[in-house]
Parts: sequence; structure tokens; C-alpha cells
Amino acid sequence: MSKPKIFSLPVRVYFQDTDAGGVVYHASYLNFMERARTEWLRTYGYSNAGLMKEFGVVFVVRSLKLDYLKPAQLDDLLDVTAQVKEAGRSRVSVLQTVRRGHEVLTEAEVHLVCVSLESFKPVSVPEVLSEQWKK
Amino acid sequence: MSKPKIFSLPVRVYFQDTDAGGVVYHASYLNFMERARTEWLRTYGYSNAGLMKEFGVVFVVRSLKLDYLKPAQLDDLLDVTAQVKEAGRSRVSVLQTVRRGHEVLTEAEVHLVCVSLESFKPVSVPEVLSEQWKK
Amino acid sequence: MSKPKIFSLPVRVYFQDTDAGGVVYHASYLNFMERARTEWLRTYGYSNAGLMKEFGVVFVVRSLKLDYLKPAQLDDLLDVTAQVKEAGRSRVSVLQTVRRGHEVLTEAEVHLVCVSLESFKPVSVPEVLSEQWKK
Amino acid sequence: MSKPKIFSLPVRVYFQDTDAGGVVYHASYLNFMERARTEWLRTYGYSNAGLMKEFGVVFVVRSLKLDYLKPAQLDDLLDVTAQVKEAGRSRVSVLQTVRRGHEVLTEAEVHLVCVSLESFKPVSVPEVLSEQWKK
Repeated sequence: MSKPKIFSLPVRVYFQDTDAGGVVYHASYLNFMERARTEWLRTYGYSNAGLMKEFGVVFVVRSLKLDYLKPAQLDDLLDVTAQVKEAGRSRVSVLQTVRRGHEVLTEAEVHLVCVSLESFKPVSVPEVLSEQWKK
Repeated sequence: MSKPKIFSLPVRVYFQDTDAGGVVYHASYLNFMERARTEWLRTYGYSNAGLMKEFGVVFVVRSLKLDYLKPAQLDDLLDVTAQVKEAGRSRVSVLQTVRRGHEVLTEAEVHLVCVSLESFKPVSVPEVLSEQWKK
Repeated sequence: MSKPKIFSLPVRVYFQDTDAGGVVYHASYLNFMERARTEWLRTYGYSNAGLMKEFGVVFVVRSLKLDYLKPAQLDDLLDVTAQVKEAGRSRVSVLQTVRRGHEVLTEAEVHLVCVSLESFKPVSVPEVLSEQWKK
Repeated sequence: MSKPKIFSLPVRVYFQDTDAGGVVYHASYLNFMERARTEWLRTYGYSNAGLMKEFGVVFVVRSLKLDYLKPAQLDDLLDVTAQVKEAGRSRVSVLQTVRRGHEVLTEAEVHLVCVSLESFKPVSVPEVLSEQWKK
């Protein structure tokens, strides 16, 4: 079994991401992580809009855990990673980190569910994705 | 002709609204103003969802002008106002301010267009609203 | 030992809180929860700015867990709660929920650390707060 | 006199930038424009943090005008431009557009003031910038 690939997206910190504490606002990391998950999905050939149009599905966040280890700051150039931890019929767990060089600033586990756009109920992950995630 | 009523919504400033400059981030004022316009619309008996369901329309921002006079800060309790400036067939201009006590912090003019949910093209403002705005 | 009080803040959902999936964006719940924690703190007599000025401290999020059970929607009037789960020397765990009437939409556990504004290192929670949280 | 250079930053649209109307939320364009202005500033050799540290100044938005011509949508890859319109002692006006291919979606004029970090009062734009902006 091969090791799952780690996808990484560079993300710059702007004023819009920070707060009056002088560092990145804690909810902004979720935005960074959504960007990374979307670009990671794109490496499999699918945009959000594409998944909706072609399969009538969308991935929604079912639960998440986040550890804030060190604060990111204005102008930092971060690397935001995404990597499959575990894939099920309608679910996938994604490990994500936010790094600045070799420092890990944030660690997260994000549980996604593939739901039907019509019913908002769980449906099978499209095979083109699940086949690659289960490797 | 009667003077148009000024609607006012109290808005508290949280960390999420501020940036590393120590004050409210400039785009956050647009959020405050959207909240005020929505509650102002509600004084006429309509929620956003209600307008969509009953009339198949939504108000979208067509253009805006904003003057930032003084910065708002963490924990400030602001008053965000909304008041009709001019109403047309499918348009309405709204004057908005952000105040802290007697100080005016931000002044804005927001031009809204009533569009069809289906075509996204301009349609007449529902009469229940336009009748009151033209007074 | 008395049961810890549950604080609750009403929060309205606006367009700014939603996404193209038609429901509230998952990171927006963190914003709602920050608002509730801030107002909950205020019931003890302290604003964020007040804590900074009087004690030179600020509460930062160290980790969090979130379960998304049902989606909130545009125009919903939500109740966002906050309640002490456990309080330590420089830490406090807060249970938070987002409800719509009797439905629980989101459940969270947020771990805060009290840090010095100067060093960003953990320091004791001011006694005026810790005394009440340990009851 | 040479024509002012037009800087352009590619920006991808994610769920976080959209709203329940199915398109990009109107305030999100201000975020896109802040990112473009920051990277445009970086082409002159200065980050926000660098300006603060080296000169003790920060650029704040004094006023802005925005025209929303066509909506941007989920997954769009936009180009966000920035270009000096007029430069004064402590001020600079920046023309900005948001484009999708050849379509102009949004046009804006943003007036910035260079203020002292200490007093928040207008001060001269650092010469390294003003010299290039006045060309």
C-alpha cells in the first residue's frame, strides 16, 4: 500500500485574515483549509461546480478538530496541506496542517460527507474519487 | 411629503470584525450594513427568504460609495442606519451610516437592484415595498 | 455544587454568513460562537478590551471540536450558547451549541487559554473570572 | 510621461467567498482587492509588515467606490488588478478591477491614506513609493 500523497497550497496572510490581537483570526484557518481542500480536489480533475454538475453532489463538513499550536501573522507565506486519512462509502477524513516553513502552526482533521444536492442526504462518493482515496 | 424614516440597528464589534491594524477591517462595515438593510427590510414585513419565496426576487448591490471617517474599535457598540434616498421601478438607493454615539464613523450610499431569482435581470420592486419607499 | 449556567445569545443569519450551497458556511459558526463567548464574558463584567487594559491578558483559542448536525439557513434566528465545562489555572473549556428552537444544529467544545498580551504565554485567569468558573 | 503599470493578481473563488444567492458576496470583492493591492505593493519591495517596521506607517482605506457589473461565481479564476490613478503627499488613489477573462465584473476606485501607526494621522508616503507613483 502506497503512502497517501500530501497536497500543499501556498497561502499568503492579508489584513482580512487577521484580528486586533495582531495575529490570524482563529476562524480564518478554516478558510485557508477550504481553499487547500478545493485545490486538492482539483488535482483529481474536479472543481466544486464540476462535482455538482456532473454528479449532483457536494462535500460538506460533518465535523472537525483543530489544534492551534502557534499563531500565523500578517504577511506570512503559509503552506496549507491536505491528505486523505480514511475514506468510506460516503465519507472521507482529511488531515490538514498549516505550516510556516518547517513550523507546524495548526493541525486539523476534517470529516467530509458527500451529499446529494437535492436531498442533502449522504450518497456514495463518485468512483473517480473513491478509487484513488482507498489506495 | 413626510421625511423618510431612519432605521437603526445596534451592532457590537468582535475580534472577527477587526484586523491587525487594531481597528475594524474596512470590508467588515459592508457586513454591518447588510445586517442593517436586512433588518430594515424586515420592518416592512419581509425577510430575504420571504421575498424570494413570495415574489421570486432578491435585492443585489449594484454599486456603492463609502467614506471612512473614523475607525471603529473592538467592543464598540455601533448604530448602523438605513434610510431610503431614492426609489425607482427596479432600484432603490439607501443611505447608511455607522455611528458610535454621536460620532459618525462611516457614511455610505448603496444602490440596490431588485432582480429575478431565475434570470438575475432587473424586475419591478414588489408594490408592498415600493409604495412605502416612494412616500 | 451548582450546575453551571448556560448563556445564550440570539444570532440572525444574513447573506454574509451563507455560501453557494444555500446554507450557513461552516466557518461562520465559529464567528457566531466567538460572539456568544464574548457576550458570555461580558455577563461577568468584562469586555475583551477591558481584560486587556485591566489585566494585560487575552483569551485565545487553543483547540476546538465541532459537530455539524443540521445546516442553518438564511434568515434563521439562532440561539448560540456558552457554558463552562472545566476551568484550570490558565485554561477554560467552553461547551457551545447553535440551536434553532429545539433543534441542535451544531455542538462544539472550545478550549481557551489566557495569555499575556506581551509574551503571548499562558498566565493565570484573572481571579474575578476563575472564582466563578470553578463553582 | 509613461502610462502607469497595471498589476494583476489571479484569485480563485471558493465557497467562503460566495453567498446563498449562488454568486460571490458583494463584500468579498473588497477582500480580493485588498489582496491585489498588497501584492502590488510588494512589487515595489514592501510588505505591510515591512512598511510598519521600516517607516512606522500603514495605508488605510479612506473611501471607495464600487460598481458591480456582473457576478463572479464559485470556482471562477479571476484577475484582480491595481493601478495608480493619482498620488499625493499622503494619499494615493488606486483603480481596481475584477475580471474573468475579458469580462470586467467589478470596477473600483480606492482612496488610501498613509497614516502613522502611532497617531493614526496622515503622514507623507515613503519616498521609495511616492517617487514611483508620481511618474
